[in-house]
Amino acid sequence: MDVSQVLRMNGGDRDYSYSNNSFLQRKVISMTKPIIDDALANLYLDMNHPKNLIMADLGCSSGPNTLLVASELIKSIDKIRLKLGSDELPEIQFYLNDLPHNDFNTIFHYVSKFQKNLRNQMLSNSSPTCYVSGVPGSFYNRLFPRKSIHFVYSSYSLMWLSQVPEMVNTNKGNIYMSTTSPPSVIKAYHEQFQNDFFTFLKCRAEEVVSGGCMVLTILGRQSDDPCSKECCYVWDLLATSLNDMVSEGLIEEEKLDSFNIPQYTPSPKVSNEVEKEGSFVIDRLEVSEVNWDASTDHNLNLSGEHEQGYNMGKCMRAVAEPLVLSHFGESVIEEVFKRYTNNIKVSMSKEKTTLVNVTVSMTRKG
Amino acid sequence: MDVSQVLRMNGGDRDYSYSNNSFLQRKVISMTKPIIDDALANLYLDMNHPKNLIMADLGCSSGPNTLLVASELIKSIDKIRLKLGSDELPEIQFYLNDLPHNDFNTIFHYVSKFQKNLRNQMLSNSSPTCYVSGVPGSFYNRLFPRKSIHFVYSSYSLMWLSQVPEMVNTNKGNIYMSTTSPPSVIKAYHEQFQNDFFTFLKCRAEEVVSGGCMVLTILGRQSDDPCSKECCYVWDLLATSLNDMVSEGLIEEEKLDSFNIPQYTPSPKVSNEVEKEGSFVIDRLEVSEVNWDASTDHNLNLSGEHEQGYNMGKCMRAVAEPLVLSHFGESVIEEVFKRYTNNIKVSMSKEKTTLVNVTVSMTRKG
Repeated sequence: MDVSQVLRMNGGDRDYSYSNNSFLQRKVISMTKPIIDDALANLYLDMNHPKNLIMADLGCSSGPNTLLVASELIKSIDKIRLKLGSDELPEIQFYLNDLPHNDFNTIFHYVSKFQKNLRNQMLSNSSPTCYVSGVPGSFYNRLFPRKSIHFVYSSYSLMWLSQVPEMVNTNKGNIYMSTTSPPSVIKAYHEQFQNDFFTFLKCRAEEVVSGGCMVLTILGRQSDDPCSKECCYVWDLLATSLNDMVSEGLIEEEKLDSFNIPQYTPSPKVSNEVEKEGSFVIDRLEVSEVNWDASTDHNLNLSGEHEQGYNMGKCMRAVAEPLVLSHFGESVIEEVFKRYTNNIKVSMSKEKTTLVNVTVSMTRKG
Repeated sequence: MDVSQVLRMNGGDRDYSYSNNSFLQRKVISMTKPIIDDALANLYLDMNHPKNLIMADLGCSSGPNTLLVASELIKSIDKIRLKLGSDELPEIQFYLNDLPHNDFNTIFHYVSKFQKNLRNQMLSNSSPTCYVSGVPGSFYNRLFPRKSIHFVYSSYSLMWLSQVPEMVNTNKGNIYMSTTSPPSVIKAYHEQFQNDFFTFLKCRAEEVVSGGCMVLTILGRQSDDPCSKECCYVWDLLATSLNDMVSEGLIEEEKLDSFNIPQYTPSPKVSNEVEKEGSFVIDRLEVSEVNWDASTDHNLNLSGEHEQGYNMGKCMRAVAEPLVLSHFGESVIEEVFKRYTNNIKVSMSKEKTTLVNVTVSMTRKG
């Protein structure tokens, strides 16, 4: 599987599009806002009231969240500027990066509306200039010229690996790390993440100016155990659907055996990798939790659980459909996601189901 | 008609796509290569062997020509560098700009292949780094931060106006400037071009660094007469098809009366506009001719004229279909282009049919 060809969120703006099913990811963006504000304030001071700012959102996907991020970052800069009494907003160049098969066309249709709306959202009367560009390519490669970027943002993207880890043993019956996975599978996943994340840091170290910042939110875990339920359960439920379909003869066993999700959900110890690479110093590292229904309170909300399950099902379909489709084909796709959505619904009605976010904010050393 | 919503070349890669029907435009790019080489050599010397170069193709469209331009510009820089004995190729940031409804997705699918191919095309062993971004927006607005661009290229784009000129009189029976157009229509077209081109120059003057260059090729004319056949004939033939369909009751007369092509083909006197705006000094201005069959010899080639007519018909369909479709609707589109292609075929078999290109190369004053 060539991940760069297959990994993308569902495009367009229809029922199962990422565009219409990314409320949870939006929630995560707003949860991490204080960390972003902090990093931007430091950057703004460090740059001594800059006249221009070059920012990039890596793994921007395609949907309302894409330009929401840009808009939140610019509003944050406007606030900082007012507080510090700067005369004018810097000109902002905003790069939107994702893999080449991301649906950039849909984003681009909204750019001029976004630029118009920005003007009405500023605290001051100044009209911000934000120039938007799309950058197709894997963030595990260089994307920008040397020392050309001031601020890098990435949310819910860096858990995606550059490839499915190469495995010596079959990950029998599983599609991700699981308590029943062979240790060699867990090791392969971990090493793939280490290599990819190291490459990511090396590339960004070239591109980010001294004193430039990165705020990265990665789907992760609290626990040291890479097979802990908090990070693996959501894929376990997909594995259950697929295994059931194998038992019923709807999917070939070999087909399932050769399918693994190219994702790794790191613990807060991801900070070790940053230190090992050595170009960035960590300013903040925080762990947060969000319920599958995108609420953040810790009480189980049993009302309306059917709709919630349905929504989380659609969200996971928007995220995983291209991967599943390319491996298992068109003919089974509806059935796979019908079962998967049902499994999600049942789980959400029975127990507290959360995702864990690891957010790390860092500065490029001088 | 909101031109920014409607004006685009046909997307995708099927029969009538711009992607498969832009051989003529490709020919024009190669014809103007010596002027580009000249401008880049001057820029390279002026910048004293730059470590990075920021370039933009404005009105890049979507198809093989899009990345061909980038590739030709980079090969040209490689040649200049070798000649001047520079150690390494500069890092190149290449912006691809077009209106938001241009098919950027199709371009982006080919970017990584383009980057790989570049490596094999260099004269030296050095592997060029070219970072590609897409910039959605009208070039009659600002697209980039202040003083951020070294080289601007645009081919076959600046004859497109930002809007259909506002007319006091109806351009009865015509869809473009014609010998039978009221003088007020000709005036409206001319003023719209002057305003748009002035705005274009003002915006680029902000964005291009002192000493930066622009090479613009515009579909134009030799003659001072804006209604001369060299620039109007190709639209006359579409007008003929539409008028015939009005006579046959297939299209309403009012529908035709309210349709005008948002294009203006300037003469070499376009240089006056550059001087009037005042930010750029003209280095070269050249006029060239290309036959409708994309050949450049001046003998009428009567063999295979049917296929040529068919190809030019497809080319014009790739260019004009979105405009015609949005105004006249789906139901007549096949018939319109069947007749238009036929008119083109007949003309090409009877007479010499050419397009005129005005190429102007200029430098941003210090």
